[in-house]
Amino acid sequence: MEIAKVCADFLKKSEFITYMGIELLSLDEEHARGRMPFVEKYKNPYGSMHGGSLYAIADTIAGTLANMGGMAVTTVDGSLHFLAPAMDTEYIYCDAKLRKGGAHLITVDVDITDDKGKLLDCGCFTFYKTAQKLLDD
Amino acid sequence: MEIAKVCADFLKKSEFITYMGIELLSLDEEHARGRMPFVEKYKNPYGSMHGGSLYAIADTIAGTLANMGGMAVTTVDGSLHFLAPAMDTEYIYCDAKLRKGGAHLITVDVDITDDKGKLLDCGCFTFYKTAQKLLDD
Amino acid sequence: MEIAKVCADFLKKSEFITYMGIELLSLDEEHARGRMPFVEKYKNPYGSMHGGSLYAIADTIAGTLANMGGMAVTTVDGSLHFLAPAMDTEYIYCDAKLRKGGAHLITVDVDITDDKGKLLDCGCFTFYKTAQKLLDD
Amino acid sequence: MEIAKVCADFLKKSEFITYMGIELLSLDEEHARGRMPFVEKYKNPYGSMHGGSLYAIADTIAGTLANMGGMAVTTVDGSLHFLAPAMDTEYIYCDAKLRKGGAHLITVDVDITDDKGKLLDCGCFTFYKTAQKLLDD
Repeated sequence: MEIAKVCADFLKKSEFITYMGIELLSLDEEHARGRMPFVEKYKNPYGSMHGGSLYAIADTIAGTLANMGGMAVTTVDGSLHFLAPAMDTEYIYCDAKLRKGGAHLITVDVDITDDKGKLLDCGCFTFYKTAQKLLDD
Repeated sequence: MEIAKVCADFLKKSEFITYMGIELLSLDEEHARGRMPFVEKYKNPYGSMHGGSLYAIADTIAGTLANMGGMAVTTVDGSLHFLAPAMDTEYIYCDAKLRKGGAHLITVDVDITDDKGKLLDCGCFTFYKTAQKLLDD
Repeated sequence: MEIAKVCADFLKKSEFITYMGIELLSLDEEHARGRMPFVEKYKNPYGSMHGGSLYAIADTIAGTLANMGGMAVTTVDGSLHFLAPAMDTEYIYCDAKLRKGGAHLITVDVDITDDKGKLLDCGCFTFYKTAQKLLDD
Repeated sequence: MEIAKVCADFLKKSEFITYMGIELLSLDEEHARGRMPFVEKYKNPYGSMHGGSLYAIADTIAGTLANMGGMAVTTVDGSLHFLAPAMDTEYIYCDAKLRKGGAHLITVDVDITDDKGKLLDCGCFTFYKTAQKLLDD
């Protein structure tokens, strides 16, 4: 089995990712794209997406890209900047882009956008590559 | 009604916060403490708490502290550093501490710990104070 | 006088910016580019650029872009991710890109690269717009 | 020679650290404290400490604490939150506190204060432990 399929299947192991409605749309060595529906159950008391919901998709999609190196990774740290609230959109989209794919550390930028491509949030995640292979030899 | 009760009640408006099992344990002008259960439905594919779950409690508890200024706030940005995975704990606890309570900007540090007080994660959140009062005059 | 010239001249007021050899190369509403020489006096004990030197150019160039809104700004926060050390380069370059230009808050991404365009560092800065105009009416 | 002396001597290798006037005041396994003078040559165009100056002391003092593990470290990332400008102070002080001292990753919080102990800035730095020993066997 190829690594992209392993990474995609891996997400199905988590009840939380399933509950959050996070779907992986595309994945290659340097980019990953996913989406989640903009619905009531992911919102904060003000009616916009809860920071935890946005971080959930950002960490998931960035981590899936980090897994493309073939090893299990742990998140070292991650930040999100909340630029504009989601409104009148069916989905929110998360694009992850590889900034560093090192022997031990992986850095990934994320942009979160709405149906029309308007930028809502941006952030940066750092991952540590463990010695555990995701794919059997 | 006093502001602390308004801030606590405010959390009940969000289905997401309820689903995440986030409880506010204590709240004053400079500190807030909350907890969430360490159970399967908040975990990542590796079996530890999903970054989105940890960020959900951090943003919620830090934001509740930021609300103690009496105005609605929006999260400007927030970061989490993942220091150790939660294991063998019934709850994870989040302690938020005010670092700056300005006219426009509020900065809050968070520590996430387990039942034994072991540090699992730390982070920092910035909030912007809007002109919207949480409490009627 | 136009705002871009005011922003550029503003940098000359700081002895620190002059000592750091930071030059502004280009500036418009959404982008700013600057450079500093890669020389001994900005290095850490390991012989690569000191984090403080890299942050100095990042904060300066991002802040100059933030000033293009016409108001004095203060830095709310800023992070840098150190991806690769500078080596065999005459200058390091900093490109700042506007991610949000709000009424009160401005968010700017920075990339630091070497002579060949290799990515060395990336980061994100948030600024607060004060009520103080940079340009007389 | 003991590790604390090696770490302290190490700072003298950098012309930048010397120019910035950064002094190490105390150092143990979990804490480091340093200071730098609050003088014109470290200021931004507004007359307060340049973000690069503040980051220079934060990265230096946090990195010195990270070196106490006995191995050379590289800075993975670091953020600073600017809470209040320094004013009417002779020195600014930086206190670094170990949050995680792992086999590969080290996390350090920093607080920057003035002569009266007023909090000016706070931040968090992550370091990666290389395989290079600072102290000969």
